[in-house]
Amino acid sequence: MNLRKLGEDRLLARFASHLPLNRKVIAGAGDDCAVVDSPGADELLLLKTDCVVEGVHFALRTPARSVGWKAMARPLSDFAAMSGVPQFALVTLIAAPATPVAWVNALYVGLAKVAALFDVSIVGGETSATTGPTVVTVSVAGFAEKKRWISRSGAKPGDELFVTGRLGGSLGGRHLRFRPRIAEARWLTEHFSIDAMLDLSDGIGADLPRLAAASRVGFEIDQGSLPRNRGCTLAQAIGDGEDYELLFAVAPETSAALQAKWRKRWSLKLTRIGHLTARRRSPPKVPRGYVHFQQR
Amino acid sequence: MNLRKLGEDRLLARFASHLPLNRKVIAGAGDDCAVVDSPGADELLLLKTDCVVEGVHFALRTPARSVGWKAMARPLSDFAAMSGVPQFALVTLIAAPATPVAWVNALYVGLAKVAALFDVSIVGGETSATTGPTVVTVSVAGFAEKKRWISRSGAKPGDELFVTGRLGGSLGGRHLRFRPRIAEARWLTEHFSIDAMLDLSDGIGADLPRLAAASRVGFEIDQGSLPRNRGCTLAQAIGDGEDYELLFAVAPETSAALQAKWRKRWSLKLTRIGHLTARRRSPPKVPRGYVHFQQR
Repeated sequence: MNLRKLGEDRLLARFASHLPLNRKVIAGAGDDCAVVDSPGADELLLLKTDCVVEGVHFALRTPARSVGWKAMARPLSDFAAMSGVPQFALVTLIAAPATPVAWVNALYVGLAKVAALFDVSIVGGETSATTGPTVVTVSVAGFAEKKRWISRSGAKPGDELFVTGRLGGSLGGRHLRFRPRIAEARWLTEHFSIDAMLDLSDGIGADLPRLAAASRVGFEIDQGSLPRNRGCTLAQAIGDGEDYELLFAVAPETSAALQAKWRKRWSLKLTRIGHLTARRRSPPKVPRGYVHFQQR
Repeated sequence: MNLRKLGEDRLLARFASHLPLNRKVIAGAGDDCAVVDSPGADELLLLKTDCVVEGVHFALRTPARSVGWKAMARPLSDFAAMSGVPQFALVTLIAAPATPVAWVNALYVGLAKVAALFDVSIVGGETSATTGPTVVTVSVAGFAEKKRWISRSGAKPGDELFVTGRLGGSLGGRHLRFRPRIAEARWLTEHFSIDAMLDLSDGIGADLPRLAAASRVGFEIDQGSLPRNRGCTLAQAIGDGEDYELLFAVAPETSAALQAKWRKRWSLKLTRIGHLTARRRSPPKVPRGYVHFQQR
C-alpha cells in the first residue's frame, strides 16, 4: 500500500484516531483548522514551525521513526529555548505518492512518541504529493508565562554563559534522538532569573554570535572548557551543529547558586563556558557553525 | 544573488523588517519562537498549516508573487471556513540553494499582500535547502469566539445548502489569486446561526461528502443550480477544485432571510444548491473532486 492508493482522506482518518490529544482540544485533525482552548490572560502564545528535508536533515535510509522523532523534537527544542510549554502540533507531510504507508506509519510513531513525552497534542496537518525529496514540517503552538519567557536579546555584559550537555558529533546519530531540554528550561526559569537563552541548532560557533548580536554584547569563550562529546575535536564541538543543548546567560552573582542547585537536580552536565562583554567592533574569531545555505 | 550566497541569517534579516506585524506581536521573526499576546478567555485558539509544492500547486513558471499569494491565502481560507479570525503566520520556505533572491523577494511580496489584507502578522519562519521542488508551508494561528466557530459536523437533516461565488475552472488562474472569504464568513456568523461550513478546496464533489460524513447526514443537490464559472461544464464545477468558496448549511427557516440580507450586503453571488437529508446507506453519486494522492 502506498500513499497514492490510500488517498488523503483515508490517510488522515487512519492517523487521526492515534494522535495524542489533551482535553484542551475541541476540534483536532479532520476539520478545517484545529480548535483549542486558549491560554489564560497572564500567558503569551508561542508559535514555532520547523521542517526536516530528506537529503538535508535526514537520509533516504534513515528509519522513518527517527525522522518523525527529529521533526517533532526540533520545534520543541525552540520552546525549550524560550522556557515555553508546547501544547499543540500540526504536521505537514510532503511525500511521493509511491511512499509506502508503512513508512508513514513509522513516521507518526516517532512524531507521536516525542509529542506524548511532552504532553503535546497533534491536532492536525496536511499531506501533499511531491516529485522530490520527502519533507515533514511541524508547527507548534504553546505558551509561556509573561514573567518566564526568555528571548535571545536580554543578555548583559558580565553575564556568565552556560551550556547544557555536550557538543559535537551529533551526525553520528544524536541528531535523530535528542531530547528537547524543556524540563530543564522550565526548571531554570522557575528558580533563577535567566537573561537570555537559545537552543544550539547550528553549532555554538553560529548560535552564540546570534545571541550576542541580539543582545548587543560581545563574548569571551574559554575554548578549553567547551564540553565535547567523546571523540570530538574542538572544531566539531563548535561547528557540527544539531546539538539541541541550551545556551544561556545569567548574572555573575547567580552563577554559583545555579550551578550548585543544578547538580542536585539534574544528572545532565552543565558547563560554564565564558562570559559576555561590551560589544566589540570586530567580532571574535570563532569557527562558523552549520548554516544551511552556505554549507554546500 | 542566490540563497546559497545570501545565507539564512541575512535572508531572515532582509525580510524580517518588511513583514506585516500588529501590536500583539511581542517577539517576531528572529527569536526561537514567535511570541504573541494570547486571545481572551471567551475565545478559542485556531491553528492551521498548509503547503504549496512546485509541480503540484504551482508551476515552475508561476510568478513567485502568485505563489506567495496562494501559499498564504490557502490556510486563511480555512479560517474563513470556521468563521475564525487569523492573526499570526509562520512561513517555511524549502528551496534549492540556487534559487534567486529576487524570486524569494517576490514570494514575500505575495505572502505579505494577503496577510496585510486580513491584518495577519507574519511572525517568523524557517528556510531549508532542498534538491527537489520548491515548497512553501504557511502556519496560521488565530481565534474564534466560543459562540461563533463553525465546524463541519453541525449540519442537520433538512438544512439548506449554500455556496458562495462560482465553481470550476480555477486552474485557468483563479487558484493563484482567490480571496479567502473571511469577511463573508464573519458576517454570516454575526447575523445568522450557521450549522456547518467548509471551504471548497478539493471540489464540491469531494468536499460536500466530507461535510455530510462529518455531520452524519446525507445530501441532495440540484446539479442544475450549481453556480459555474464562465465556460465550465458541470463536471468541472464539481470536480476541478481550488474554488476556495464557502459551502454552508443553515436551518430551512433561516434560508429566506439570509438570502435577502446577503443580497443587500454583498455583490458576491450566493446560491442555494440543495439540502441535507437523513444519512443514506449508499452515498449519492457525485463525481469525486480533486484528491491529491489519487490524482496522478
